[in-house]
Amino acid sequence: MTTQLYYNVNLATMNDEFGYGSDTPYGALRQAAIAIQDGKIIYIGDYDTALAQFTDTKRTDCQGKWITPALMDCHTHLVYAGNRSHEFEMRLNGVDYATIAKNGGGILSTVNATRQASFDELYQASKQRLQAFIAQGVGTIEIKSGYGLDLDSERKMLQVAKQLGQDFGITVKKTYLALHALPPEYQGRADDYVEQACQWLKTLANEGLVDAVDAFCEHIAFSTEQVAKLFAVATELGLPVKLHAEQLSDMGGAELVAQFDGLSADHIEYLNDDNVAKMAQKNVVGVLLPTAFYVLKETKLPPIAKMRECGVNMAVSTDCNPGTSPSASILLAINMACTLFGLTPEEALSGTTRHAAQALGLQDRKGQLKVGYDADLALWDIERPADLAYLIGQNRLDKLILSGKPTNH
Amino acid sequence: MTTQLYYNVNLATMNDEFGYGSDTPYGALRQAAIAIQDGKIIYIGDYDTALAQFTDTKRTDCQGKWITPALMDCHTHLVYAGNRSHEFEMRLNGVDYATIAKNGGGILSTVNATRQASFDELYQASKQRLQAFIAQGVGTIEIKSGYGLDLDSERKMLQVAKQLGQDFGITVKKTYLALHALPPEYQGRADDYVEQACQWLKTLANEGLVDAVDAFCEHIAFSTEQVAKLFAVATELGLPVKLHAEQLSDMGGAELVAQFDGLSADHIEYLNDDNVAKMAQKNVVGVLLPTAFYVLKETKLPPIAKMRECGVNMAVSTDCNPGTSPSASILLAINMACTLFGLTPEEALSGTTRHAAQALGLQDRKGQLKVGYDADLALWDIERPADLAYLIGQNRLDKLILSGKPTNH
Ligand SMILES: [Zn+2]
Ligand SMILES: [Zn+2]
Repeated sequence: MTTQLYYNVNLATMNDEFGYGSDTPYGALRQAAIAIQDGKIIYIGDYDTALAQFTDTKRTDCQGKWITPALMDCHTHLVYAGNRSHEFEMRLNGVDYATIAKNGGGILSTVNATRQASFDELYQASKQRLQAFIAQGVGTIEIKSGYGLDLDSERKMLQVAKQLGQDFGITVKKTYLALHALPPEYQGRADDYVEQACQWLKTLANEGLVDAVDAFCEHIAFSTEQVAKLFAVATELGLPVKLHAEQLSDMGGAELVAQFDGLSADHIEYLNDDNVAKMAQKNVVGVLLPTAFYVLKETKLPPIAKMRECGVNMAVSTDCNPGTSPSASILLAINMACTLFGLTPEEALSGTTRHAAQALGLQDRKGQLKVGYDADLALWDIERPADLAYLIGQNRLDKLILSGKPTNH
Repeated sequence: MTTQLYYNVNLATMNDEFGYGSDTPYGALRQAAIAIQDGKIIYIGDYDTALAQFTDTKRTDCQGKWITPALMDCHTHLVYAGNRSHEFEMRLNGVDYATIAKNGGGILSTVNATRQASFDELYQASKQRLQAFIAQGVGTIEIKSGYGLDLDSERKMLQVAKQLGQDFGITVKKTYLALHALPPEYQGRADDYVEQACQWLKTLANEGLVDAVDAFCEHIAFSTEQVAKLFAVATELGLPVKLHAEQLSDMGGAELVAQFDGLSADHIEYLNDDNVAKMAQKNVVGVLLPTAFYVLKETKLPPIAKMRECGVNMAVSTDCNPGTSPSASILLAINMACTLFGLTPEEALSGTTRHAAQALGLQDRKGQLKVGYDADLALWDIERPADLAYLIGQNRLDKLILSGKPTNH
């Protein structure tokens, strides 16, 4: 069987075996080679050894460029219909949020548009965003429901997410987020809605449409008690949980995630130090969403130093959504994580590779260049990995390879 | 002669004749047509009238998309060699500016790399940035010298800028910026350097390499007195002036520009109200550089409200440079102008079309859809012009047409 061999390449392995986390930033291996077979990485090392080891090879000279693991975005609301640029414009023309909401704006405008959209309309609208992600080297993306808020519409969103993954050959993790907002028909009956959402979860999980369960835990959304009910159902179903936590205030959502042995607490600007420690104990990833921080002109910074001190792994994600982060740029999220939150470029790359993989429960298959792992690779025309964080609006992706196959981005 | 006719299109004319600045945001004309001949716009109006008027037409159905004037970036340092991502990384790893400067970092590292680069090396490094601009619909760009700081190197930069314009068919305005930083060989002899820079200006202007004259007026750069000497030479030569003014402190640079009837005062976070009024009197454009504001984590906002009140036209630009704005994204600059400075999407689009044209002295030819103007058009797959400001990392450019010809971006 033919082995695909990429050589004359620098590798940001993000792999402990090559010194990541100890003495070698990025687990970097220079002037190296990487071999792929059957969609898996089968060799990482020097070129001469590779040539001796593999007889039937197809070789690609990478001309001194860099390969990183394909990027991973572990928190998006990429599937939605409608367009809220007119709200953005109204606000900048001095119209206040309340007036906009009264005129059907805000998240419920996206819910209405998403409910009304056919599968195909929803697919087309989402596809152009997905293509922007792929063009920046993203090979795995999480996509949430949460603009349907009824069974059929939540299903439709998750089906679109699934279809996109199949059609574009990228790994899509589907997250159930019915507890995103209270739909108008349940006004004043939040507990009834939570009850209903728990039932829908069972149905959709049965249909194989749910990989994880999320909620928006906030004064303006759902309480920790309500979220705990949903999380209990998720646990029964064997599904991992994660949470929009501590974005606008400290609700104790991160602690709840830790109690349920969850994957990640996301946003976490208002996360307190005690709960950082609890996240560390349970290996909960802290997911940073700097583009939303930027759009909202938030000033409260997530507790980066404390997370470093406690050993909480940090992921970095776009939060792609029509309200607070109309962004499809993982590279800009990386830059903003450095510029706004003070992450190092290495931390930001970890946050979109190995730690994003952990936040999706994929750390045994993805997010590192490692023998046996999926051959999801991004080839970049850069001098050093820090270029990915430093450059703004300059996409240096040369090639995206998923399961060993180059994509047409 | 064949007339190129684009129809079934919405036009953001940015033109007073269509209500821009009075009752019609963007001077918008919906379901319209625009005709081009000999590289000029010859008709704007409805399709049926166009069909009756022009017999020999080549027609393009724009399917309800939007045409804006091709975007214009009136302030960039796009031509440079070297890569300062390692400094970016060092700072985020806790190394201070002084240590970085002591190790040859900062602007002088770019000066060294630019001096050492051959014409071709400098061209190649700059080309990939220019292509990123073109891919986002930019048809006119200003490019400054200022990393050469000796006659030959300043000439080389301006020649590269000129060559890029010729090769890519985009309009390049070349600005002389020898008073950008004091080169090491003039340490302690700033006045001598200014004297020298005035001589070089005469030489380079004679060679047809200078369209405008700029300087960096700041405590860490050059004083208003030193800049005034250079501006006097520029005036003798018939060259318009502009200035990096009031970026870090209020030096009175904007007033100086007004005194010299200059084109623009750029950065202007620390601009005082009196000088806003002086800019208004002399029609000096205020050039906003929000990406640099973002990178520097500046908190002092430019006096937007005062500029509106006084009628100072505002342009928006990337400031593309390796130190404080390693960005080639005019669309992100537009978004940041709205998000960080509170510009409306219409103001931000004006800032990258008609007001950018004014900042480059091109307001009689470019920056609006207007009969007789250059046929520099950007066709966007958007629902409304606000999408250009609202979307982040999502480039909806469908086609860029320069002097009537579609470019391959
Ligand atoms: Zn979110
Ligand atoms: Zn500048």
